[in-house]
Amino acid sequence: MTVPNHFELLGTDGAARLGRLTTPHGEVRTPAFMPVGTLGAMKGLHWREVRDAGADIVLGNTYHLMLRPGAERIAALGGLQKFTTWNGPMLTDSGGFQVMSLAQLRKVTEQGVTFRSHIDGAKFELTPERAIEIQRLLNSDIAMQLDECVRLPAEHADIDRAMQPSLRWAERCKRAFETAPDGYMLFGIGQGGDVPALRRLSAQGLVDIGFHGYAIGGLAVGEPQDVMLAMIEEVVPILPSDRPRYLMGVGTPDDMLEAVARGVDMFDCVMPTRNGRHGMAFTRHGQLNMRNARHIDDPRPLDEESTWPSTRDYSRAYIHHLVRSGETLGAMLLSEINIAYYQSLMQGIRAAIANGTFAEFRERTRAGWAQGDIPPR
Amino acid sequence: MTVPNHFELLGTDGAARLGRLTTPHGEVRTPAFMPVGTLGAMKGLHWREVRDAGADIVLGNTYHLMLRPGAERIAALGGLQKFTTWNGPMLTDSGGFQVMSLAQLRKVTEQGVTFRSHIDGAKFELTPERAIEIQRLLNSDIAMQLDECVRLPAEHADIDRAMQPSLRWAERCKRAFETAPDGYMLFGIGQGGDVPALRRLSAQGLVDIGFHGYAIGGLAVGEPQDVMLAMIEEVVPILPSDRPRYLMGVGTPDDMLEAVARGVDMFDCVMPTRNGRHGMAFTRHGQLNMRNARHIDDPRPLDEESTWPSTRDYSRAYIHHLVRSGETLGAMLLSEINIAYYQSLMQGIRAAIANGTFAEFRERTRAGWAQGDIPPR
Repeated sequence: MTVPNHFELLGTDGAARLGRLTTPHGEVRTPAFMPVGTLGAMKGLHWREVRDAGADIVLGNTYHLMLRPGAERIAALGGLQKFTTWNGPMLTDSGGFQVMSLAQLRKVTEQGVTFRSHIDGAKFELTPERAIEIQRLLNSDIAMQLDECVRLPAEHADIDRAMQPSLRWAERCKRAFETAPDGYMLFGIGQGGDVPALRRLSAQGLVDIGFHGYAIGGLAVGEPQDVMLAMIEEVVPILPSDRPRYLMGVGTPDDMLEAVARGVDMFDCVMPTRNGRHGMAFTRHGQLNMRNARHIDDPRPLDEESTWPSTRDYSRAYIHHLVRSGETLGAMLLSEINIAYYQSLMQGIRAAIANGTFAEFRERTRAGWAQGDIPPR
Repeated sequence: MTVPNHFELLGTDGAARLGRLTTPHGEVRTPAFMPVGTLGAMKGLHWREVRDAGADIVLGNTYHLMLRPGAERIAALGGLQKFTTWNGPMLTDSGGFQVMSLAQLRKVTEQGVTFRSHIDGAKFELTPERAIEIQRLLNSDIAMQLDECVRLPAEHADIDRAMQPSLRWAERCKRAFETAPDGYMLFGIGQGGDVPALRRLSAQGLVDIGFHGYAIGGLAVGEPQDVMLAMIEEVVPILPSDRPRYLMGVGTPDDMLEAVARGVDMFDCVMPTRNGRHGMAFTRHGQLNMRNARHIDDPRPLDEESTWPSTRDYSRAYIHHLVRSGETLGAMLLSEINIAYYQSLMQGIRAAIANGTFAEFRERTRAGWAQGDIPPR
């Protein structure tokens, strides 16, 4: 059965792609960065700020939401988009990754995974079928297959052992997703660790099954950037060019720029909000530590040329003070500033691909980061 | 020397007063509630939300700001209004209250108070002259005299012992304030605990010295509401009717309503933001505990008739989920919702006084609180 396609490739510039993904809750411009709203909320941001920053789509974590408040409850409240008031496109992961990293007493079999909640020890089972059922209850525009992710470095045999059941789970997820209304999407997730041959096998296996889009999973889990980029280069030629490609859990601005240069369309990462809560600001001068005493008397904004009000309107001295004092507003401002930077980077990438100037944009952007912050004052 | 008057009494309804206070950074409609931005930030709110909620003036804490980032530093950065980006009227307390409650190894003499910072143990001295100097450096529109506050219940002799030096400090503060530019204001602070005779003596002493406005201090520190209201009734007849009256650190919506009914014009309190961080919502149905399981499946907003978007647009189920999950957004939304409720209460009070319907407004508002929340669903 052919899987309907909701992705439109609008242009390319080298391997970089400009596209548009149409979901039941709206359109997504690609390359896209998806801010992570783990529990149905963006840490430190109002939803209006997420939207104003330019995000078209956000991510929710199935594992967290199935534990609290529960998928059936969210369904009764009208789905995740309505529950949160975001009312736009949402992608949910399958829960597999967090089961591996957070849950207790987990046991993986061919059937699925059983585990105990990290909150209250309650017992849960997550099978491919249940993972899809939960994501349908959440009303995710884009659901992800249940997969098993191996933390790198790992033995070849362990990576292989995780990859093969993931492909069988992919098939079961696809079957379970067949009743989803038109317009909703399911992405397969390629695994294979840092082993090129396994990466290719995994990607080919997914393509043979057929999905609305394809994710590259199990990367940005500790390996060097060149390994990650090499794995992308292995699988991209195998993936159909008319379908969206999503690099899960990535990453730094530089990771995204390099992955776009290799044909990736979608990203998600907690880094802008998590680092923001720890006093870090992403800017065109690179990542700045606002805790640093160099900012203490500095009346200048983070970046006076930014189009984002908070990046332009608050002094470094004030942000430094908020961060040093542990004031919530410091975390709020930096989370917002970082999400806005990530989105402006994506906007810049999209404009450059449209203009056929992606290579220049990439060089200029990297040069800005490499140059570092403006001199202290 | 006559102290210039920047307060205009626009109308009265019984003892309740409608007024306008003109500061160097803008006008303040009274009765006014001043949200507390302890360290130059409102916990959980953006400054634009404070303004949108209807606040004309906010409060900063001298004790906190003198320790971090330091008064001289804020002066060099253009004053508290510019430093924070609030850019509107600001009142600062004198630091005395927090020295008593937070600082270590404090020693009070006729000269002033020495103490060690609760942050790093650094030694500081706060005299009446230094308290004024700091508040001038902060550029406060309204400075408060240094005073000594006694925690109730206390012995008559102890209350007296604190009140008498406070009056002498009031005089020294006034002298120190003489060089302030026109338009800036200094308020005296009446003490006297729960002893009517001492309250009257203190108020009369301040009026004899002469200030731009008069605060009633040392209340809402644990005494029953009727004691607080009785003390207000003791001092209000002594205070000049053409000057603003500020009840410090108060309070609940009901406290404010009752104090307005007795002629008070200004309030400040951390309650809306602090209780918001603990899952409490102030509404016209009273104070609601959003942690309560009754909200878990409730798709209704806190108050569908509210004019404040967040009070109307988020479901109780979502806010409950955020609070239970410890998501920052829960604290952010409830802090904002509570500040907006406090401001809407003040707006209602002002409109009622202007219309000569304050008594009805007071009854209707109290009846709403007494009726309690809408039935669970």
